[in-house]
Amino acid sequence: MLGRLIGVGLGPGDPDLVTLKAARAIEGAACVAYPSLAGGDSFARAIAADLIASDAHEIRLDVPMTVAREPAQAAYDKGAAEIADVLRKGTDVVMLCEGDPFFYGSFMYVHARLKQDFQVEVIPGVTSVTACAAVSGRPLVARNERLTVLPGPMNEADLRNRIAGAEAVAIMKVGRHLQKIRSVIDALGLTAQATYIERASLPEQVVLPLAEAPEKAPYFSMILLTKGADPWL
Amino acid sequence: MLGRLIGVGLGPGDPDLVTLKAARAIEGAACVAYPSLAGGDSFARAIAADLIASDAHEIRLDVPMTVAREPAQAAYDKGAAEIADVLRKGTDVVMLCEGDPFFYGSFMYVHARLKQDFQVEVIPGVTSVTACAAVSGRPLVARNERLTVLPGPMNEADLRNRIAGAEAVAIMKVGRHLQKIRSVIDALGLTAQATYIERASLPEQVVLPLAEAPEKAPYFSMILLTKGADPWL
Ligand SMILES: C[S@@+](CC[C@H](N)C(=O)[O-])C[C@H]1O[C@@H](n2cnc3c(N)ncnc32)[C@H](O)[C@@H]1O
Ligand SMILES: C[S@@+](CC[C@H](N)C(=O)[O-])C[C@H]1O[C@@H](n2cnc3c(N)ncnc32)[C@H](O)[C@@H]1O
Repeated sequence: MLGRLIGVGLGPGDPDLVTLKAARAIEGAACVAYPSLAGGDSFARAIAADLIASDAHEIRLDVPMTVAREPAQAAYDKGAAEIADVLRKGTDVVMLCEGDPFFYGSFMYVHARLKQDFQVEVIPGVTSVTACAAVSGRPLVARNERLTVLPGPMNEADLRNRIAGAEAVAIMKVGRHLQKIRSVIDALGLTAQATYIERASLPEQVVLPLAEAPEKAPYFSMILLTKGADPWL
Repeated sequence: MLGRLIGVGLGPGDPDLVTLKAARAIEGAACVAYPSLAGGDSFARAIAADLIASDAHEIRLDVPMTVAREPAQAAYDKGAAEIADVLRKGTDVVMLCEGDPFFYGSFMYVHARLKQDFQVEVIPGVTSVTACAAVSGRPLVARNERLTVLPGPMNEADLRNRIAGAEAVAIMKVGRHLQKIRSVIDALGLTAQATYIERASLPEQVVLPLAEAPEKAPYFSMILLTKGADPWL
């Protein structure tokens, strides 16, 4: 009997935003895997820390943050091979994923490598998009409105075109793209509708109108564009 | 001291996909409110049933499903007034919301009516979009891909334009719009990339390639369009 790969969504950062199902899966896991960026701490592991059994086998995927894809691919190859070794012994592996595993999560790189050979289960999690909306105090979408989710690294022209044609917009992975995104939103005259959110649900959380956002944004930040009014009464 | 209005996301239906924070808020609530569609059972209440205290005061918002907006508006006016009465007595009110409260949730109609006068907290939940992706076994978005969320009631031309220009797409509120949506996706040659999901995470869950979807879809159904390949290795 082979073990199963279980991708577990942990939500945006507050350990209380983990689901009951995810908490149970982690508590019962003999082996947990998680990514850590560029040799730093693992945010996913930090969220789940209190749930991981003290004698659990831990597999850490050290993913370098380079523009070239090969170093990250090599890291996922190595991590997937380590996970496969455990699965072949019949032990389930719980892979910890910040937010939701299938929504811009690094779980997908492991999933792509192992899904042919092993059974996979995904436990969905609260995404950073609705977590950011919750702390912003501004509803995201209602009725027949459309939501567009865009990654900040997109080039300026694409970003402008996508935002111009959209209604509610969530821009992920802001980080070093903050100034580019700001100038696109400014040029479209949408700054007054934009909220900047950093580390939603964590004690260090920042929520500001985009006009008052800091000069530099960390990786865990987002910009939400929503309608100002309440068309929903 | 006024009570606070707390919008609590319950996730897509499986009571185990409620977050620890939401579970605690519901268990501790002296008053819970929830919508029920057209006099039927309340899906939100059913998800949270085991968590609601037996002596909790329950406020049920009976929302008629009519095309005209006035009857629903009147129902929200009445429900919001009942909730306000409780808040004015200093008691918090937990409003139960399927999925996430700020993502196409009826909580927003109550929020719009009460946010000027009362403190509001929103506890985000797992949305149906990532819950459907999880059970479909197909990753939603990675890297610099874009996600577009569209409501099924949109007219055919708008739907076609939005889907044509998009990458990953989630189409909500399928229900009686199924045939229209299918023909749009067919005409765009995208049927092979489309998955039909009904009641994700519940025992009655259905997951099928769109080509094999039933003739009729219930309200709690969704269509996901994702790339077939694994561009993520
Ligand atoms: C690689 S993606 C992971 C998304 C995650 N899987 C999810 O479901 O939200 C990382 C991006 O998510 C966003 N993000 C994640 N957690 C966040 C938080 N607590 N506050 C603000 N943004 C967050 C940021 O835009 C960040 O650049
Ligand atoms: C009024 S919206 C509520 C969305 C909810 N607030 C959320 O965060 O997912 C109702 C629509 O959500 C989708 N939906 C909700 N739960 C679902 C489930 N368990 N399976 C499939 N679709 C679901 C359907 O498209 C349905 O028409």
